[in-house]
Amino acid sequence: MTDRIREFLRTRTDDGPVLVVDLDVVRDNYNAFAKALPDTRVFYAVKANPAPEVLSLLASLGSCFDTASVAEIEMALAAGATADRISYGNTIKKERDIARAYQYGVRLFAVDCQAEVEKVARVAPGSKVFCRILCDGAGAEWPLSRKFGCEPQMAVDVLEHAHRLGLSAHGISFHVGSQQRDPKAWDKALASAAAIFRESADRGISLSMVNLGGGFPTKYLKKVPGVKTYGATIFQALRKHFGNRIPDTIIEPGRGMVGNAGVIETEVVLVSKKSETDKVRWVYLDIGKFGGLAETMDESIRYAIKTPRDGAPLEPCVLAGPTCDSADVMYEKEPYLLPVSLEIGDKLLIEGTGAYTATYSAVAFNGFPPLKTIHI
Amino acid sequence: MTDRIREFLRTRTDDGPVLVVDLDVVRDNYNAFAKALPDTRVFYAVKANPAPEVLSLLASLGSCFDTASVAEIEMALAAGATADRISYGNTIKKERDIARAYQYGVRLFAVDCQAEVEKVARVAPGSKVFCRILCDGAGAEWPLSRKFGCEPQMAVDVLEHAHRLGLSAHGISFHVGSQQRDPKAWDKALASAAAIFRESADRGISLSMVNLGGGFPTKYLKKVPGVKTYGATIFQALRKHFGNRIPDTIIEPGRGMVGNAGVIETEVVLVSKKSETDKVRWVYLDIGKFGGLAETMDESIRYAIKTPRDGAPLEPCVLAGPTCDSADVMYEKEPYLLPVSLEIGDKLLIEGTGAYTATYSAVAFNGFPPLKTIHI
Repeated sequence: MTDRIREFLRTRTDDGPVLVVDLDVVRDNYNAFAKALPDTRVFYAVKANPAPEVLSLLASLGSCFDTASVAEIEMALAAGATADRISYGNTIKKERDIARAYQYGVRLFAVDCQAEVEKVARVAPGSKVFCRILCDGAGAEWPLSRKFGCEPQMAVDVLEHAHRLGLSAHGISFHVGSQQRDPKAWDKALASAAAIFRESADRGISLSMVNLGGGFPTKYLKKVPGVKTYGATIFQALRKHFGNRIPDTIIEPGRGMVGNAGVIETEVVLVSKKSETDKVRWVYLDIGKFGGLAETMDESIRYAIKTPRDGAPLEPCVLAGPTCDSADVMYEKEPYLLPVSLEIGDKLLIEGTGAYTATYSAVAFNGFPPLKTIHI
Repeated sequence: MTDRIREFLRTRTDDGPVLVVDLDVVRDNYNAFAKALPDTRVFYAVKANPAPEVLSLLASLGSCFDTASVAEIEMALAAGATADRISYGNTIKKERDIARAYQYGVRLFAVDCQAEVEKVARVAPGSKVFCRILCDGAGAEWPLSRKFGCEPQMAVDVLEHAHRLGLSAHGISFHVGSQQRDPKAWDKALASAAAIFRESADRGISLSMVNLGGGFPTKYLKKVPGVKTYGATIFQALRKHFGNRIPDTIIEPGRGMVGNAGVIETEVVLVSKKSETDKVRWVYLDIGKFGGLAETMDESIRYAIKTPRDGAPLEPCVLAGPTCDSADVMYEKEPYLLPVSLEIGDKLLIEGTGAYTATYSAVAFNGFPPLKTIHI
């Protein structure tokens, strides 16, 4: 929460939930990443918050961009990034989308299997590809599935296939899991990456880049280490596994870049109990799982919530959204502590909501509009 | 799948996933409900599919409308419904939204606690309210939480409170759980409703309506009983619990009205394995959890999928969406059987997708547009 956001909300007159993002915080975050990992190029993960204001700011600061689709490539270009600063980082791409990216000048593509390599080779000849490998995601708060990446031993074959088809077998990428609270999580993946570098060299292929992915956390309820700690720990791991031949590296922060820059203001619509004897109250907000808080899925991300009655005694509440969908409940298995004096009409502030909120929101579910977003 | 949808898709030239809804099927479903429960008024659950074409058709057939928000009330009015055919069925409403609904002429409101009754009494004086009671949702495929409704013993107090505040204590509502495959599920809830009717009468309040809710299933992979069976079983339960003093009844079908009217055409973007020895292939589509298939959350709803290679031997696949989100996986715990010969570029048809798809889709997640929708 910043003074600028506080001042904006103080004078706000319109109705409904709103996300306010303070661009000064984004600027500070970018500078912190650049300083913590001075030899690493920063590719902002556009999907975290693709607002033109965020992209333009980051483009002007010199950031590169990790994109998930042609639409995101177009947004990065519109924000002033040149094509050589854009990575098409989705391992799942239609061949005609790869062709469009190539027409835009993009030459850096993620792959995790031979079929994807073949698509790139056909319509983006000579491009650089990096192969994503699987990580177990231990220590991350947002679930990491096996959706992206292949087993490390397969990556060598995938990169060799790329090399044979005339592509530049550029390197390795991995993702240690979003909202990764353990800086040591990079160590194991870097050990795999180094092994792939050696095995590829044995086959005559010289890899040069390790994409360290994202995963850098933002502060929700629990404390997280600072960017500096991540930088130092990752550098140690690079040194440990690559010795004095440290490859080019890139990082893809998303949540870590914009998460703590945003605050959602929401209103308490109803406070009720299910029976006279119920211990736990239900608190219903005008925003829920389908309005921007999708990351409360399985109660994964636990946001910090400020109320106008902080300081009053707390009691556990089930927190739910405003739609007629019984799945639209944010915190129930582990109820959320809120002031006992909380009332209908109170305005709450949900902190750390600058990433993965607005663009997740449903287009018109139950007739509710998508989350309004202001960048200041 | 109907001939009209097949013909539409045959001549389609644009790219990306699309939902095609056949309005003739919606018409048939409406008539089947009207016939199966001839003394029951049908309130279509607008949230299931609020497309103007669906609402206009149902309005012309004489349907009433169950709405979740002021926006849905406005859509129902725009489609030709008069305000006396609209219920504001969300138990979670801002007081100013109740006031707007009242200005539009709406006089029927859902409540499940005294605080909500007080809002209605203040800004919608004299309106009819029905109190929603909790159901356990056993037999339903979509999870039913305790989000809506109160314990039956509390409902009498809620309705008495409404009566005292000058509202018309109209009746009881419940929901047996969405995609409810057991027609007998209504029996237990009707027993509670009848008990509340008796208790209210003892307190001098004469209730007259039971809202039987939705829950009527559409056919996905498993067989479901027909509407006729539901109608007969529910009527038996009404007779059993209310004898020859059967109250006015309404139903709120959503999924059962539009689910089987829609088919999504999607494309296979990638087929891959995570290692050479993996038994299970990953099949990635150009639609996923954030593009309209939100109801695959926790693998709840299992759609029937047709491929151009049906008839070939099947093998288990993990089915995932196209976004860079590791949670965007539809079926993994229980892999989906698809033809072993399935290839990148194949067009698949996801059946039974007329309800709870298009409006759930994210506004722009990963740069992907919301689900395109055509009504024919």
